[in-house]
Amino acid sequence: MEIALLGGTGDIGEGLALRFIRDTDHTIHIGSRTPEKATASADAYATRLGDDAGEITGSSNETAAERASVIVCSVPPEYVVSTIESIESSLTPGDVLVSPAVSMNRGPGGFVYEPPSAGSVAQAAAQSAPDGVPVVGAFQNLAAGALASLENEITADVVVTGDDEAATATVTELANELAGIRAIDGGGLAATASVEALTPLLINLAMNNDGMHDLGVRFE
Amino acid sequence: MEIALLGGTGDIGEGLALRFIRDTDHTIHIGSRTPEKATASADAYATRLGDDAGEITGSSNETAAERASVIVCSVPPEYVVSTIESIESSLTPGDVLVSPAVSMNRGPGGFVYEPPSAGSVAQAAAQSAPDGVPVVGAFQNLAAGALASLENEITADVVVTGDDEAATATVTELANELAGIRAIDGGGLAATASVEALTPLLINLAMNNDGMHDLGVRFE
Repeated sequence: MEIALLGGTGDIGEGLALRFIRDTDHTIHIGSRTPEKATASADAYATRLGDDAGEITGSSNETAAERASVIVCSVPPEYVVSTIESIESSLTPGDVLVSPAVSMNRGPGGFVYEPPSAGSVAQAAAQSAPDGVPVVGAFQNLAAGALASLENEITADVVVTGDDEAATATVTELANELAGIRAIDGGGLAATASVEALTPLLINLAMNNDGMHDLGVRFE
Repeated sequence: MEIALLGGTGDIGEGLALRFIRDTDHTIHIGSRTPEKATASADAYATRLGDDAGEITGSSNETAAERASVIVCSVPPEYVVSTIESIESSLTPGDVLVSPAVSMNRGPGGFVYEPPSAGSVAQAAAQSAPDGVPVVGAFQNLAAGALASLENEITADVVVTGDDEAATATVTELANELAGIRAIDGGGLAATASVEALTPLLINLAMNNDGMHDLGVRFE
């Protein structure tokens, strides 16, 4: 499968890129608004992974999306809608958009979830996605730092939400291919807020408790 | 310590009552708007626990709150504010109110967190609490069914939030006395929304995944 990671040059995108390359046989296309940055990141990831590196390219977001059938919008939440609009001509019906972004603000007691008016980042993405291109929520609750440190063995649940059965099945399979990840069904896309809202809690817990950092979550 | 469980006749209140009685040496005061119901529940819990039962009473919410220094508002979310108003004359500075309630609605994709305008149920409780009586958020993410089945060994994290250090320390110690529970610091009271919001996710996961029911959560 061809997977694009838009904003795959940093934060959660970096960790997802590295682990998709290491743990799966899929071809990974790093996208960025600055193609040179994407190329440099793709080269750096290939170097870091050495013999474990599969096929990986770097390009503009538009080209990465054009090459892929699963497109992960791992850009900051405020750029999700504009990024999807910018790649619209690269999307074809049957492609799947994946939304891992979370919008939050730091308040007096800690971080608080601040969803866009659509209800969640994933639903805002769905409103701007072309017809026939479903959006699936996933990967919001993974700690970027833990993910990007490949020597770090992670054990975490990834909650998958969406309204298109085939699309959620594809993303569930993908997530389960990552070592230490268990993908579970969080319901329809309208239930994504409850998944995104968990991320500020994970950050608050890491800030307030000694020995807790780069937290993941297990439901049991 | 004297602990009141307002609304301790059902749902999460029942499980908390049974486990506080079994696992701690504190005296438990079950409160209800209908005192006869509270007395009947207290008797039933004592019978269920047999030799494990410590001291337990049943009474009106007002009397239960009067007797206790830690008062758990385990009533449905829409009754939290009116319940606190109804027990105001029973509260004295230094008492601690604990808020385990979560307001949510069932939407097309699953349950969605619907906080009151104060930001969270805990913050709404704090707005209606008298001066000198701090509110602490805790116990929102425990499954009522798992808690009330005493043969069920639970392993779950309880996130504690609050702005009063002594009050959060008291509730943290209390929660840690329950077998299988680890209390962790979720930050200030204004961060309680991120804890309450986890409850609809736990319900959605239980509904959508085979073999997942009465879910708890572990942060690791």
